[in-house]
Amino acid sequence: MSNHYRDDSLTLHTDLYQINMAETYWEDGIHNRKAVFEVYFRKLPFGNGYAIFAGLERIIEYIQQFRFTDSDLEYLKNEAGYGDDFLEYLRTLRFTGNIRSVVEGEVVFGNEPLIRVEAPLAEAQLIETALLNIVNYQTLIATKASRIKHIVGDEIAMEFGTRRAHELDAAIWGTRAAFIGGFNSTSNVRAGKKFGIPVSGTHAHSLIQAYKDEYTAFHKYARRHKDCVFLVDTYDTLRSGVPNAIKVAKELGDKINFVGIRLDSGDLAYLSKEARRMLDDAGFPNAKIVASNDLDEYTIMNLKAQDAKINVWGIGTKLITAYDQAALGAVYKLASIEDDNGEMQDTIKISGNPEKVSTPGLKRVYRIINSINHKSEGDYIALEDENPQEEEPLKMFHPVHTYVSKFVTNFVAKELHQDIFAGGELVYQSPSIWEMQRYADENLELLWEEYKRTLNPEEYPVDLSQKCWDNKIKNIQEVQAKLKKDAFLK
Amino acid sequence: MSNHYRDDSLTLHTDLYQINMAETYWEDGIHNRKAVFEVYFRKLPFGNGYAIFAGLERIIEYIQQFRFTDSDLEYLKNEAGYGDDFLEYLRTLRFTGNIRSVVEGEVVFGNEPLIRVEAPLAEAQLIETALLNIVNYQTLIATKASRIKHIVGDEIAMEFGTRRAHELDAAIWGTRAAFIGGFNSTSNVRAGKKFGIPVSGTHAHSLIQAYKDEYTAFHKYARRHKDCVFLVDTYDTLRSGVPNAIKVAKELGDKINFVGIRLDSGDLAYLSKEARRMLDDAGFPNAKIVASNDLDEYTIMNLKAQDAKINVWGIGTKLITAYDQAALGAVYKLASIEDDNGEMQDTIKISGNPEKVSTPGLKRVYRIINSINHKSEGDYIALEDENPQEEEPLKMFHPVHTYVSKFVTNFVAKELHQDIFAGGELVYQSPSIWEMQRYADENLELLWEEYKRTLNPEEYPVDLSQKCWDNKIKNIQEVQAKLKKDAFLK
Repeated sequence: MSNHYRDDSLTLHTDLYQINMAETYWEDGIHNRKAVFEVYFRKLPFGNGYAIFAGLERIIEYIQQFRFTDSDLEYLKNEAGYGDDFLEYLRTLRFTGNIRSVVEGEVVFGNEPLIRVEAPLAEAQLIETALLNIVNYQTLIATKASRIKHIVGDEIAMEFGTRRAHELDAAIWGTRAAFIGGFNSTSNVRAGKKFGIPVSGTHAHSLIQAYKDEYTAFHKYARRHKDCVFLVDTYDTLRSGVPNAIKVAKELGDKINFVGIRLDSGDLAYLSKEARRMLDDAGFPNAKIVASNDLDEYTIMNLKAQDAKINVWGIGTKLITAYDQAALGAVYKLASIEDDNGEMQDTIKISGNPEKVSTPGLKRVYRIINSINHKSEGDYIALEDENPQEEEPLKMFHPVHTYVSKFVTNFVAKELHQDIFAGGELVYQSPSIWEMQRYADENLELLWEEYKRTLNPEEYPVDLSQKCWDNKIKNIQEVQAKLKKDAFLK
Repeated sequence: MSNHYRDDSLTLHTDLYQINMAETYWEDGIHNRKAVFEVYFRKLPFGNGYAIFAGLERIIEYIQQFRFTDSDLEYLKNEAGYGDDFLEYLRTLRFTGNIRSVVEGEVVFGNEPLIRVEAPLAEAQLIETALLNIVNYQTLIATKASRIKHIVGDEIAMEFGTRRAHELDAAIWGTRAAFIGGFNSTSNVRAGKKFGIPVSGTHAHSLIQAYKDEYTAFHKYARRHKDCVFLVDTYDTLRSGVPNAIKVAKELGDKINFVGIRLDSGDLAYLSKEARRMLDDAGFPNAKIVASNDLDEYTIMNLKAQDAKINVWGIGTKLITAYDQAALGAVYKLASIEDDNGEMQDTIKISGNPEKVSTPGLKRVYRIINSINHKSEGDYIALEDENPQEEEPLKMFHPVHTYVSKFVTNFVAKELHQDIFAGGELVYQSPSIWEMQRYADENLELLWEEYKRTLNPEEYPVDLSQKCWDNKIKNIQEVQAKLKKDAFLK
């Protein structure tokens, strides 16, 4: 590789414009002004009624390693033309701000701040790209996995997608996100080692081909692998694969634990029903039928509707690439910034598209949980100095269709953000992935079924407090007044 | 992170079943039998008429680091239950085989071997997953980029997708693949440093918000960045953004190089035409208009059809995620294997689906180039011992609809594979990414325009030699005879 810069720190994993902006701020002397940025997405993916947040642990790793190396600075000087003075500033730069975030496995929705970065302006700007890169992918996959697991139900869902993932990181961080979203295992051994996810897998067609004969191949495989699942579709599932699997299972008897068979092609509904009958007739009513082949929540729903006899689901491509919607559109918007007098001033990004107008101010997010039925009434975004717990009844209203409103009593306002970094120091300890998965499960319990429906779920309320809404309107009006004045002066 | 295994070698970046199969081969003593596997995809992505191969350099890195570390073995023992004897075998395992491959930037098609691995069976099996993970993604993105660049034409195409890429690797290897496919630059600074791709970028909305005033923000930005592109859609593109950009450009005059403006939202056709008029009227006929916002080949084609005045195209999400088809389905199939007597025996994977039947045998791939018009007549897959150059006229026929045939004279048969690894040693030196991009361009020149059309391209011929076809039919018949015999014996 024609790479003169040997080390590959992740600090340069940012868009060039972030460094350009940092340079402008630095030259103008405003690089250390306190800024508040928020990460949020506007629209839930897959038409789902909720999303599952993931990516925080990777963000922590990234923030902790954040420093420009000598070779980074050399590159920026030689190839991008930045001046020595600015590069000297970058050399000593570390992340010194605060990060508050929802935790992995949290159930989240559109238009609520998932991560809040309060930091010197230049620092907050430089980390934007990596944060979005991580959150967008991992949250997308955790959400897709949760959708699929919702349909799979109590049966087993295994992640099999490494070969179709978008390069190596996606395979391992994607399967971790899938585990958080409810999957039971991964085929990727590196992800098993790195994250402690249970690994699963049997054998491929090439084993059969290597022996040129299914019967022999199954026998050889069973010698060492006592918990046997035989892949039965190399030549002909019902004429060859299943009969050979049964024959070997009978011959080996107690010497192995005949777990079952795996179908990887053909009409899975028909084949699974025929295979089930053959296995039952042969005296293996407990043998499982594992199925794979471009499965997702829709095909699984359909196979179940056809009464397919499948017990274990192997999900690859459609999950790990989020095939039906391969991107989540989380953004990073400036909500507030220190002015010349050291006062925080809220900021807004206006758009011709009303949903794209950002919500100004330093904010907190609460889940309003009904104390009687333990179901969530909705999420509530309030300004920093508000305490919704002290308001009763709490007025919740739709932030676009404001006439849609309700008053809530007997509730607990659970704050969703936790402190992750304080003054640049990590103050959060990630739980295990098992705890994250359980946390996602428990939080889904707070949602009425209507919000979890796979097709056309009900819209979950994400409301603004009255103060937050008033502040937004005030900011919009200020910008509009300024635009009018400018137009008048021209 | 609850990770007891600190090192993260890529050798375990494989599916568990590969290790299971390697164990079976090893226990049975056939792990060192010579095996031939081929990587190929069946169907071109995006309905495109060709694909651009990418991923080889990453594969080379992966093969070179291939060795199980102590912590890999410890994990396999503790968590996956493999026996010490097998793990001792893995400890000393290195890749010792041959790899032949098409090179990065090569124009490739469905059903032709892209990579040919000849290696001891267990080694060839263990590397499958990583090879597919790499080739599937990088080839997908190089192809998508080539499609988009085909529509962009001589204008500039910039890759902007890091924030929506599937985790970090996809961002940098994806943008490298996009460069090979014809893109001009990336926004990702790390990719610029690592691969030598030109980096580009201006500033974001947050710069404007930080100054609360477009005019001031443009001024501040221009102080340091002499080649100015101003982002004009933070508040109102035509009422505020473009007028402020013009005002600053006029005030600063020769002190800056006013390159142009960037549009990132709204109706790009309308806004670009209005902005063009405003820039021209203000005396900036050479100022460029950069556009971005969920662009792909279809939106660009449409904008051009509407005579949008856009000179530079920033492409993010739709490229880096291959949004309209987020996976390429390349597979890895056993084509031949040594038998008990040390003879190579061809193998086949049968399927109810005729396109999915693999092609047995050790093969080479040739591009048949007409010596008169220098256009390609098609690709030609022959067995190892054949030399199509010596056949004239060369009979080429469709491998499914065999009556579709032609005889070719006056041709050069260019072999597409190069030696990459020989006996485990790297024997190939990757060219620069600039050479790869040029190579893709030159090879696209060999294709008639009909194959490069964005919508409904003509199908390019990928034909089998008569010997290769006869061998495939013979293998199919052998399997079928065996299936019949087994059924008869039952």
